[in-house]
Amino acid sequence: MIKRHGRSTLELENRPSVISWGAVVGKNEGEGPLSDCFDNIYYDSGASQETWEKSESFFQQHAFMEAIEKGELHPHDIDVMFSGDLLNQCISSSFGLLEFKVPYLGQYGACSTMAQTLLLSGLFVNGGIADIAAAVTASHFCSAERQFRFPLEYGGQRTPTAQRTVTGGGCAIVGKHTEGKPYIHAVHIGTMIDLGIKDANNMGAAMAPAAARSITDFLRDTETSPSDYDLILTGDLGVVGSELLCELMLKDGIDISNWHNDCGLLIYDRKKQDVHAGGSGCGCAASVFCSLILNRLSSGELKNVIFAATGALMSPTSSQQGDSIPGISHIVNVRSD
Amino acid sequence: MIKRHGRSTLELENRPSVISWGAVVGKNEGEGPLSDCFDNIYYDSGASQETWEKSESFFQQHAFMEAIEKGELHPHDIDVMFSGDLLNQCISSSFGLLEFKVPYLGQYGACSTMAQTLLLSGLFVNGGIADIAAAVTASHFCSAERQFRFPLEYGGQRTPTAQRTVTGGGCAIVGKHTEGKPYIHAVHIGTMIDLGIKDANNMGAAMAPAAARSITDFLRDTETSPSDYDLILTGDLGVVGSELLCELMLKDGIDISNWHNDCGLLIYDRKKQDVHAGGSGCGCAASVFCSLILNRLSSGELKNVIFAATGALMSPTSSQQGDSIPGISHIVNVRSD
Repeated sequence: MIKRHGRSTLELENRPSVISWGAVVGKNEGEGPLSDCFDNIYYDSGASQETWEKSESFFQQHAFMEAIEKGELHPHDIDVMFSGDLLNQCISSSFGLLEFKVPYLGQYGACSTMAQTLLLSGLFVNGGIADIAAAVTASHFCSAERQFRFPLEYGGQRTPTAQRTVTGGGCAIVGKHTEGKPYIHAVHIGTMIDLGIKDANNMGAAMAPAAARSITDFLRDTETSPSDYDLILTGDLGVVGSELLCELMLKDGIDISNWHNDCGLLIYDRKKQDVHAGGSGCGCAASVFCSLILNRLSSGELKNVIFAATGALMSPTSSQQGDSIPGISHIVNVRSD
Repeated sequence: MIKRHGRSTLELENRPSVISWGAVVGKNEGEGPLSDCFDNIYYDSGASQETWEKSESFFQQHAFMEAIEKGELHPHDIDVMFSGDLLNQCISSSFGLLEFKVPYLGQYGACSTMAQTLLLSGLFVNGGIADIAAAVTASHFCSAERQFRFPLEYGGQRTPTAQRTVTGGGCAIVGKHTEGKPYIHAVHIGTMIDLGIKDANNMGAAMAPAAARSITDFLRDTETSPSDYDLILTGDLGVVGSELLCELMLKDGIDISNWHNDCGLLIYDRKKQDVHAGGSGCGCAASVFCSLILNRLSSGELKNVIFAATGALMSPTSSQQGDSIPGISHIVNVRSD
């Protein structure tokens, strides 16, 4: 049922499938290069909600609804739901998903949440703990800005290394192995790593060492090399973090540059859109993975993908108190036959 | 390996054991009726840290250290660690546990975190996903007050229904079935429930319906009645929530009053200590369960316990925006032979 490689790389021998998925985004994301991939684009990024926090909840809710509708499922079919977000006390998850009345395990993995929730969904279905599990997360530019940086009205300038929090959400529904659907071959549970970076405007650099560590461990544990994969996809390292990741791994003799891409680089057109170092936030990896990537795995265009979302496990309080930024990266290896 | 009863009640047929546990608390908790049960009492509740948030991290760290030392383990023996807390972005978990370099899955279950992390630890060990898993959480009165209510210096008055956040942490280490150790017989994953209570100074009332729902579902799914258990223990409903829980369940024809107790009522002497409606916070259920309860299960004084910790999945922001308070309750049924 499960084969363990190393300390925390787990091969899911029942090959649970991602049976359906959905991604919904806001205006900026809808105007980017992936516009055709999303299930819905809300050009009013507030989604007619009273507050930005409620808008973020809306994106969680609608990502879940798209995924279950496309899978011809009802919320009652879902045995367990894993969700989390960046807001204090993860309220976009709880308020967004409350009404579906699904057994719920709240997660906190910061921007690694999509990988963390998918990993747990895969393990639950693989082990017969659940027949069908849902992994869902979202983020919102406006709620994140005011919570982590400045109120939008302040009009603060952002540094070139800063990334833009994606307004959007994604949901993946995991069920028993189903022919023709992408399946989870293996997962890797990340370990926190902190190399002392303190610049909260350079999250990519803070998270890159965690991605390097997890990808290196995963390749070693599975006795594979980058060329065995079609794509090694990080969550939201952006341009700074992506370069650093490739450099860090090259120092260890592993060249991933031909296979690496990053959701934060895919979601926006950095030449045309004012997004500085790229996209970020839980919704970045979620909306890219639960659209473009799963679509391509489904069509057979991609066959073997390492999805390594990264999270920065800090808060404005920890930064104000002078702490550095611990990073983590969880991996889900998704394949199609 | 796993037997499912109903939608989310899971019988762990490999009976994973709680192989060791630890609880450390601050001054007020150490002066309460359970003082003899704790592994360590820090009469300087700041634990010589620079900030209250770092003190909270200290309690996570030391709860984990007590548990692994008592189990004659090394951090490297732990395959996965589940942890979470009440601070924004769960920083007391990430900063407190970073140094141990254990594969880490951050959880957010508010005050239900001890049950949620223990439930996941049990499922992971039961399913062979991990040999040894750690469940850890903590809270701190001073960090919680300034984040959720007022800075301590303000000297705000508290309402009679308010509870006192416990300064303390607890950790339970779960491993393969071990004779003579308490074991996890079954778990229940809770569903969020919101009956419209908006008073953030009456968390007990907001969380009681979730406890009632989960306990009722668990008893039905397992075809057991309250008298089958020695103790039905909630996490931190306090005096108001505990009464409400018993009333709510009685309306459904289930009388738990002879078997029910609450960690928030056990940890303080409400006659002598100024704690209003009782204790609360992640560290409340954690420090009581990982001392008194597991000690008594270990000695055989208790044989069959329902541990139903409850969480309020709100934030100061959601309350300020007029939202009501969704509650959740996860259950771990721990037995000894």
